[in-house]
Amino acid sequence: MWPDNGLIEFAGIDLPIIQAPMAGSGGLEMALAVSGAGGLGSVGCALMDAATLEKTLEAASQATLRPLNFNFFTNDPPTAQPERDARWLRTLSGYFDEMEIQPPPELVTGLIEPFDDSRCTVLERAKPAVVSFHFGLPSSDLVDRVKATGAKVLSTATTVREAIWLAENGCDAVIAQGIEAGGHRGMFLTDDPLTQIGTMALVPQIADAIKLPVIAAGGIADGRGIAAAFALGASGVQIGTAYLYTREATISDVYRGALQGVKNEHTVLTNIVSGRPTRCLVNRVVRELGPMAKEPAAFPKGFKALAGLRNAAESTGNRDFSAHYCGQSAALANQTTAARLTRDLSSAALGRFNQLRP
Amino acid sequence: MWPDNGLIEFAGIDLPIIQAPMAGSGGLEMALAVSGAGGLGSVGCALMDAATLEKTLEAASQATLRPLNFNFFTNDPPTAQPERDARWLRTLSGYFDEMEIQPPPELVTGLIEPFDDSRCTVLERAKPAVVSFHFGLPSSDLVDRVKATGAKVLSTATTVREAIWLAENGCDAVIAQGIEAGGHRGMFLTDDPLTQIGTMALVPQIADAIKLPVIAAGGIADGRGIAAAFALGASGVQIGTAYLYTREATISDVYRGALQGVKNEHTVLTNIVSGRPTRCLVNRVVRELGPMAKEPAAFPKGFKALAGLRNAAESTGNRDFSAHYCGQSAALANQTTAARLTRDLSSAALGRFNQLRP
Repeated sequence: MWPDNGLIEFAGIDLPIIQAPMAGSGGLEMALAVSGAGGLGSVGCALMDAATLEKTLEAASQATLRPLNFNFFTNDPPTAQPERDARWLRTLSGYFDEMEIQPPPELVTGLIEPFDDSRCTVLERAKPAVVSFHFGLPSSDLVDRVKATGAKVLSTATTVREAIWLAENGCDAVIAQGIEAGGHRGMFLTDDPLTQIGTMALVPQIADAIKLPVIAAGGIADGRGIAAAFALGASGVQIGTAYLYTREATISDVYRGALQGVKNEHTVLTNIVSGRPTRCLVNRVVRELGPMAKEPAAFPKGFKALAGLRNAAESTGNRDFSAHYCGQSAALANQTTAARLTRDLSSAALGRFNQLRP
Repeated sequence: MWPDNGLIEFAGIDLPIIQAPMAGSGGLEMALAVSGAGGLGSVGCALMDAATLEKTLEAASQATLRPLNFNFFTNDPPTAQPERDARWLRTLSGYFDEMEIQPPPELVTGLIEPFDDSRCTVLERAKPAVVSFHFGLPSSDLVDRVKATGAKVLSTATTVREAIWLAENGCDAVIAQGIEAGGHRGMFLTDDPLTQIGTMALVPQIADAIKLPVIAAGGIADGRGIAAAFALGASGVQIGTAYLYTREATISDVYRGALQGVKNEHTVLTNIVSGRPTRCLVNRVVRELGPMAKEPAAFPKGFKALAGLRNAAESTGNRDFSAHYCGQSAALANQTTAARLTRDLSSAALGRFNQLRP
């Protein structure tokens, strides 16, 4: 039925659609709905400590026997750079004055910590079907331990070189993340956002370079994009932004409101909101300090730097300091539920294949 | 045979493939070969004065009865900005010293002049099948005069807003130029390269927004990309970079050599080489002054600023100062001829549709 069953067989699912992990924007409820509909639901675990992760995995295993994907960041914790932190806070000082709040006394990484032994131990007990990483892979012994649980391992490439590296270092499938994608670039062998590659160019080149299933991500929000991804050589897609429009999205009213009426040209790659390049809706702080600041706070301290401003502003409905992740195809999305979206995407893609028949 | 005959009928051609106009890199010989093979060959006329244009059109009409596309820039001539020019030349002064050549005494626009009355008069006599513009459209009276010759009018959109503007201002079809594309961004209602959109996201949104044929450009260099473009809602493609690898490309040995071994991550959007954002191979001057300089010489004076350095360096096989336009899918291209490439792309696309059949 599908032109390539690589992802379906890789993940043991019915429909070749991965709901992108979106820590903070989509939780277990969304993932369960997607997996229930036949796709692969993902839980972004970047904000969870080991105890929360354990509870989440327990809840998941009680709720479903279907495959789920649990996603972790693999960033190295930033080194102490008090002078750089202080410079960034000084850059923001006018905003703190304007909002009449105190800047944080220092920048901490907060709850975003990379995948480590304690989290791996939780996975060894819970044995999820799929484990995915962002920003490369953790150390090879952690990768080996995850694979020993029976989990399939997935990570994201933004260049052909990154895809080859992932294939050589234990991945069972690779997500080709085009520049259209919302959220953080998975880049880990390059830090230059201006040479990042569009989905149309990236997918076939990665498909030529590795023998693993390739999953297209970036700019895909309807059946046309899924059909195009298969045409390019992918065996499935990962879709994030369209799921922000579902009932299950755990996003603020301000974020939900900002997603209405988004046009294709309203998003930008910026390092202002976290310290790493991420695609967000343009807003005041991105316009005034970015989109690419020369020396923002190191990832993930950038979140902490803006947290107070963001919360104060959003409490009055203002998104001047928000990190509203959004891909370039948001305008193709509709209000729906996660299960219905998954099924509708699948039907639309199959219908599109039929229309392309010579 | 093709899922959508919009471009084929628009241009009166057999295969839904436009060879992108590439002033300086592909001349009449390439265009004739492509049109002879059933596609739409394009002649980039941005560097031609009216007399040269007239000779080219005469040669074309003697060589073929098939449709050809003649492409013009529509940029406003830059205002005199002697101080800005001088600042840019000072920025480059170390390079002039190093190469032991004199900087130009002043920056002139050179042969790149926008479409005007004299060029339009030539078209009125020669009556080409298709006339395309880059950077929007010329004044409405010039558009009306071109359309009155019977020519179909084509231009490039980099956002949905630009596509709607083109549809409302006389275009008969619109090229959706994704960020992957080599060469100059056609952008004319925005000047922000960081919000520019990937082909995967741009094509379906433009297809939803206008009723004209949509032609996908950017990142397409093989049958997979063409099939993907149709899946997204295009009725054809415009391909540039792959034609740089043909025998008919009128490029220097240094440029031809640089195209060998290009990887997906070796190109960047830069305003260094001309004054406007264009996708080129990364080289020394782009790395050291760009990729996006805050205030380069105004387009098209940037060409003139680097011309002496480029010529001196290329004469010794060095591409430090070159403008080697290149899209993100160069690695998919092969050495061939323009006619064979056109036919091979078409066969590969049709084969790809067959593979996608559910």
